[in-house]
Amino acid sequence: MKSNVIGESGQPLICTPLVGKKRENVLSELADVLEKKPDIIEWRADFFEGIANTDEVIELANEIKAIAGDTPIIFTIRSIREGGQSIPLSDEEAIELNAAICRNTKVEYVDCELSNQQEHIHYLRKIATENGTKIVASFHNFDYTPSQEFIVQKLDQAEQYQLDVAKVAVMPQKLEDVLTLLSATLEAKKRLKTPLITMSMGKYGAISRMVGGVFGSSLTFAVGAKSSAPGQVPIEGLKTVLEIIERSMNEK
Amino acid sequence: MKSNVIGESGQPLICTPLVGKKRENVLSELADVLEKKPDIIEWRADFFEGIANTDEVIELANEIKAIAGDTPIIFTIRSIREGGQSIPLSDEEAIELNAAICRNTKVEYVDCELSNQQEHIHYLRKIATENGTKIVASFHNFDYTPSQEFIVQKLDQAEQYQLDVAKVAVMPQKLEDVLTLLSATLEAKKRLKTPLITMSMGKYGAISRMVGGVFGSSLTFAVGAKSSAPGQVPIEGLKTVLEIIERSMNEK
Repeated sequence: MKSNVIGESGQPLICTPLVGKKRENVLSELADVLEKKPDIIEWRADFFEGIANTDEVIELANEIKAIAGDTPIIFTIRSIREGGQSIPLSDEEAIELNAAICRNTKVEYVDCELSNQQEHIHYLRKIATENGTKIVASFHNFDYTPSQEFIVQKLDQAEQYQLDVAKVAVMPQKLEDVLTLLSATLEAKKRLKTPLITMSMGKYGAISRMVGGVFGSSLTFAVGAKSSAPGQVPIEGLKTVLEIIERSMNEK
Repeated sequence: MKSNVIGESGQPLICTPLVGKKRENVLSELADVLEKKPDIIEWRADFFEGIANTDEVIELANEIKAIAGDTPIIFTIRSIREGGQSIPLSDEEAIELNAAICRNTKVEYVDCELSNQQEHIHYLRKIATENGTKIVASFHNFDYTPSQEFIVQKLDQAEQYQLDVAKVAVMPQKLEDVLTLLSATLEAKKRLKTPLITMSMGKYGAISRMVGGVFGSSLTFAVGAKSSAPGQVPIEGLKTVLEIIERSMNEK
């Protein structure tokens, strides 16, 4: 059976986002998404209107976790700088909310942007470790694709911080950029031990969500109910493509 | 409606090979393959036991063309040097057989390896032009993937010869080689006017048969009845993947 721990499965895990604004939207999305059997679910809490109320967030996170059962949850507050929603929390308050999630829920992963201050990252890592929560260290660029060296360096930074998963999502301006992202993934896969999540976004990048696993990405985002970033493919189609790739790669 | 002229369709055409040894094998494969509705069919005549008998080859080519109807046919004698079967014809005799196919059948394309002598290529081009047949100029390396520059130069050579389609199929030894082939395709697509067919073979290369169209390849080979080269994906799966890619690329 396929493991749903990021980095422990041969095939990339399929993750579907929840982007509801109110509790009832999030829970109805969750019900829709679970029917499609994703390997993992990301709750994009920056979309949630109650984000400033820690108790409310913890309560909903616990509800999501209880309903999702064995399907792991990634709790994510995406900052507006990196493509997220505008929220009434400072970076420090967002880190505190992540820490509260580690302390008070069984959510398996919290997302932490690498653009956070070093001391905040170390702090969150300490709390996460104490509570058995893993950290997805992320970097996003919604405007363009940096050089291969820069992308590898970002992934390496997650390893330097001793975080559990390294994620890079970048926007291609041309098809060459998609190959740069795949090439960077391949290079990082060879050099690093940390599981990787990489993707090229938008329409040019959509194919990276399909073939990224071949180059070393351990997880790919698909649309379950609603997309959370440009270029995400519906889960049904993505599953089919991954199975066909898997079969082709295992031939002979 | 999708055109089945190589280079005139937005999506890559799907081509399935016929590799039967005897007339009845070829015809039964053809019947199986036609049910799966490929866009184009390649008759790999180097597999045909009657290849030394020009009349027999012409007769079977005419039968295939009559049965295939609107589905175009590529007539191919793959040399043993480039991954084909051992045949009792010299390079010059193979060129003559191609010329006979141009003169005596309605087959739409003949394959001509770029490793042929220059004068033979010019000769075949003359005969093909006179008879309204198009030439797929091909280069294969079943051992490794040459540099990006080399691959682009081979594709460019087809354009220099004023041939109709330029094809390069190479074997990856590592995943980086698959990216090299895709990158070369992208570069050639920008520089050349000639429609391209490119692929990275084997299990590493299988994904190039799925995403190659995005980078500029106008045709991809799929298994209809039997495969003719390593890494070919069954036509049903490949069609599904191409549709999903097409849909993703056309979003927004």
